[in-house]
Amino acid sequence: MKKYTVEEIAQKVNGILIGDNSILITSPEQIELAEEGQITFIGNKKYAKLWETSKASAVIINDVIELEPGINKAIIKVKSADIAMAELLELFLPDNPVFEVDIHPSAIIHASAVIGNGSKIGAGCYIGKGVKIGNNTIVYPNVTILDDSQIGHNTVIWSGAVIRERCIIGNACILHPNSTIGADGFGFRPSADGKGLIKIPHIGNVIIGNGVEIGANTCIDRGKFSATVIGDGCKLDNLVQIGHNSKMGRSCIMAGSSGLAGSVVLGDGVIVGGGACITDHTTVGSGALVGGMSGVIQDVPAGKKVLGYPAIDSRDALKQWAILRKMVKEEK
Amino acid sequence: MKKYTVEEIAQKVNGILIGDNSILITSPEQIELAEEGQITFIGNKKYAKLWETSKASAVIINDVIELEPGINKAIIKVKSADIAMAELLELFLPDNPVFEVDIHPSAIIHASAVIGNGSKIGAGCYIGKGVKIGNNTIVYPNVTILDDSQIGHNTVIWSGAVIRERCIIGNACILHPNSTIGADGFGFRPSADGKGLIKIPHIGNVIIGNGVEIGANTCIDRGKFSATVIGDGCKLDNLVQIGHNSKMGRSCIMAGSSGLAGSVVLGDGVIVGGGACITDHTTVGSGALVGGMSGVIQDVPAGKKVLGYPAIDSRDALKQWAILRKMVKEEK
Amino acid sequence: MKKYTVEEIAQKVNGILIGDNSILITSPEQIELAEEGQITFIGNKKYAKLWETSKASAVIINDVIELEPGINKAIIKVKSADIAMAELLELFLPDNPVFEVDIHPSAIIHASAVIGNGSKIGAGCYIGKGVKIGNNTIVYPNVTILDDSQIGHNTVIWSGAVIRERCIIGNACILHPNSTIGADGFGFRPSADGKGLIKIPHIGNVIIGNGVEIGANTCIDRGKFSATVIGDGCKLDNLVQIGHNSKMGRSCIMAGSSGLAGSVVLGDGVIVGGGACITDHTTVGSGALVGGMSGVIQDVPAGKKVLGYPAIDSRDALKQWAILRKMVKEEK
Repeated sequence: MKKYTVEEIAQKVNGILIGDNSILITSPEQIELAEEGQITFIGNKKYAKLWETSKASAVIINDVIELEPGINKAIIKVKSADIAMAELLELFLPDNPVFEVDIHPSAIIHASAVIGNGSKIGAGCYIGKGVKIGNNTIVYPNVTILDDSQIGHNTVIWSGAVIRERCIIGNACILHPNSTIGADGFGFRPSADGKGLIKIPHIGNVIIGNGVEIGANTCIDRGKFSATVIGDGCKLDNLVQIGHNSKMGRSCIMAGSSGLAGSVVLGDGVIVGGGACITDHTTVGSGALVGGMSGVIQDVPAGKKVLGYPAIDSRDALKQWAILRKMVKEEK
Repeated sequence: MKKYTVEEIAQKVNGILIGDNSILITSPEQIELAEEGQITFIGNKKYAKLWETSKASAVIINDVIELEPGINKAIIKVKSADIAMAELLELFLPDNPVFEVDIHPSAIIHASAVIGNGSKIGAGCYIGKGVKIGNNTIVYPNVTILDDSQIGHNTVIWSGAVIRERCIIGNACILHPNSTIGADGFGFRPSADGKGLIKIPHIGNVIIGNGVEIGANTCIDRGKFSATVIGDGCKLDNLVQIGHNSKMGRSCIMAGSSGLAGSVVLGDGVIVGGGACITDHTTVGSGALVGGMSGVIQDVPAGKKVLGYPAIDSRDALKQWAILRKMVKEEK
Repeated sequence: MKKYTVEEIAQKVNGILIGDNSILITSPEQIELAEEGQITFIGNKKYAKLWETSKASAVIINDVIELEPGINKAIIKVKSADIAMAELLELFLPDNPVFEVDIHPSAIIHASAVIGNGSKIGAGCYIGKGVKIGNNTIVYPNVTILDDSQIGHNTVIWSGAVIRERCIIGNACILHPNSTIGADGFGFRPSADGKGLIKIPHIGNVIIGNGVEIGANTCIDRGKFSATVIGDGCKLDNLVQIGHNSKMGRSCIMAGSSGLAGSVVLGDGVIVGGGACITDHTTVGSGALVGGMSGVIQDVPAGKKVLGYPAIDSRDALKQWAILRKMVKEEK
């Protein structure tokens, strides 16, 4: 594990050090759990009193908070403890799993595939015909990338991920373990006798922009025609479902177990709470916020906050909840 | 990519061609996104006006719709544009990922396993003792099929799928990536001291009929006794959960992120909307429809539409929604 | 398949045998489905009448139930038919998938990894640098365990599971197929220009106690600092999401498709129903019960039952349901 003195840390986060400047820090930790040798954070005055009883050896605080370091302890004052914390996590981030060789000999890579400079392919990976992988991209063991898919530079693909044929993934993306990109969309038509279902072929693909994160066991289906599109900077949590031909703008966030049915359009910066679902052929405008566990069944204008099932203006949803609570009380 | 003239396409879909019969079509696309060289579809009069401004070079329309092709464009009239579209997608469907050899030498196949004629086993697959795979079945790289499981003919199993021991999968099925068939059911009993939980062994298996589709990262647990059964022609979307000993009839549809708890019985042709859950030991009759995000906690008669949580007659659920909306309005 | 006489079975479950003691039993089965040669169970008087028409050759019943075996049939009386059934399932449990060799030569195991006595590593597994695996632990084919993770004794890890670096898993655990342990938590901060999102590094890990079961395609994210913790004896069903830094006590149960957002604390013996979500930084006290599909948005005291969204006292939730039903009826 990496270690730093509080003085080194103060320099890194561009902060002002008060107290013992020789303390050696082994790791950052939240204030209730921090032990001696650890550094913690206070970004809000109301938590300042926790410092007195904390066992942490140092604390990074917003410079508007007044605190005394105490004996054998140190304080580092910064403009934003939140940003300093993120910088510090970067500092203490342990090394990634190692690759003994860049391209593991047990990986099966089609002769026509092109792997960029500095990229690594782990044991047991399968890289199909015509696949193109950019530079400095890391593919951990037991990943499958099927024919003619393209992966950008500096992207990380964790073990168990499956990328089906002809999908396009940008630069600096992270695909978490067991994610599935490009499975067939879910489309059927009744058979001639009306008793069965005939599969509608899906000739489209998935296009993922730059800086996108796809959570563990998350699924993004390919388009029926053309593409299912995940815009630059989107962040999808675990177990998220994206139906065929949905299109997400830039920097949208979808929390765990949420989903878009088919042909949903999200603008830029849309936030979808955990467990929420958005029905097919619906548009959610830029900056809209869909509350956790909500069910969106009609278009949501840009910037609007919606909640509940069916999802309505979140203030109205809160009123519904209050009315129901009141009715129950009056029954007693 | 495959290309066809509009004349070839008109023949394939059994349609009447009007306009320029020499146009070369590179792919189908929905009308708002189609470009020159693409063919699109209009199945409903109300979208007919989109043709005027569409960049598509050709359009397939229901023969009851009146449209002029325009200059350098073509129209193909058919009885059902929807069916023609599905046929066309089949026509343009790109080739599947290639197998350089039928049975990849890196696959580990137990000596006692039987692989049918024309079947393909991808790199890194594991095929256990006593496994039987029919003819013309395709197993993509990095699939695991454990001991004594049986797979039918013409079935496709995508990468990352895991089929545990003694499961039976029919003909012409598709198992999407990272799906899990036959994990232990979720059953425990209190330990003697009342403080812990003892696992109940699950000696059953999973039986999947013919023509079934299992979505990406979908899970079907094995039975405690006997089998969890998925009937012929059932279609399960991504991230669906099927609990132990549930039994689905023929041609049921379960949309993304929906689930059946244990010992649920679905009749034939039941449709379960996205995110809906059905509680254990519940029966849903043939042709019933469970609305998206609903929670079914009691039996649903055949043909009935239910909605909400707890799921009730969908007309009553819509009334509840209306009443709540009205109450909020009156409070303002 | 294993076979036992009813006399052998009576001995094993410590029961009193009545009727034909020579019957050979091939498997246990629930009473409605049981055929000749099978044994079934009646744990409740109200099901006793099913025995008359059952084709089963034997039945295990609670000793307070009065039944006649009938011709060529047998009854075994026990104190608890439920416990006897679990014991019987153990008896009939078929053998696990075989390992031809303990450590399959196609597995890639880093030279520094330590594998305990009697442990088995399947084909296509990847075991990274510094990984430690205890004794008698079974790792089925195509599992990935990344650097410096530790697995205890007698643990079973099914195919497709991915355990990322530096995670700790206890003794006698079961990780079901395609589960993901230790993916990055879902944390971002706005970029300096306010238009994008910067990833917050996650330097923590996942710590899983003893006797824990992790369902198929279930995800447990690593902590931002320190660990996401799953206590001894916890049982997680399929497709469950556990966010970063959540901490579960002992013997909690989470049913399928449920989830904890980040930094949730569960006490001991908490039961979370299928599809339920618990919002971040919430505490649910020991012995509390969260109903299926509920959304918990505030702390739940120990022992309390909550239901609905937002989750409230389950009796109040039932009253809400009744009030709404009544209002719909009055509108008619």
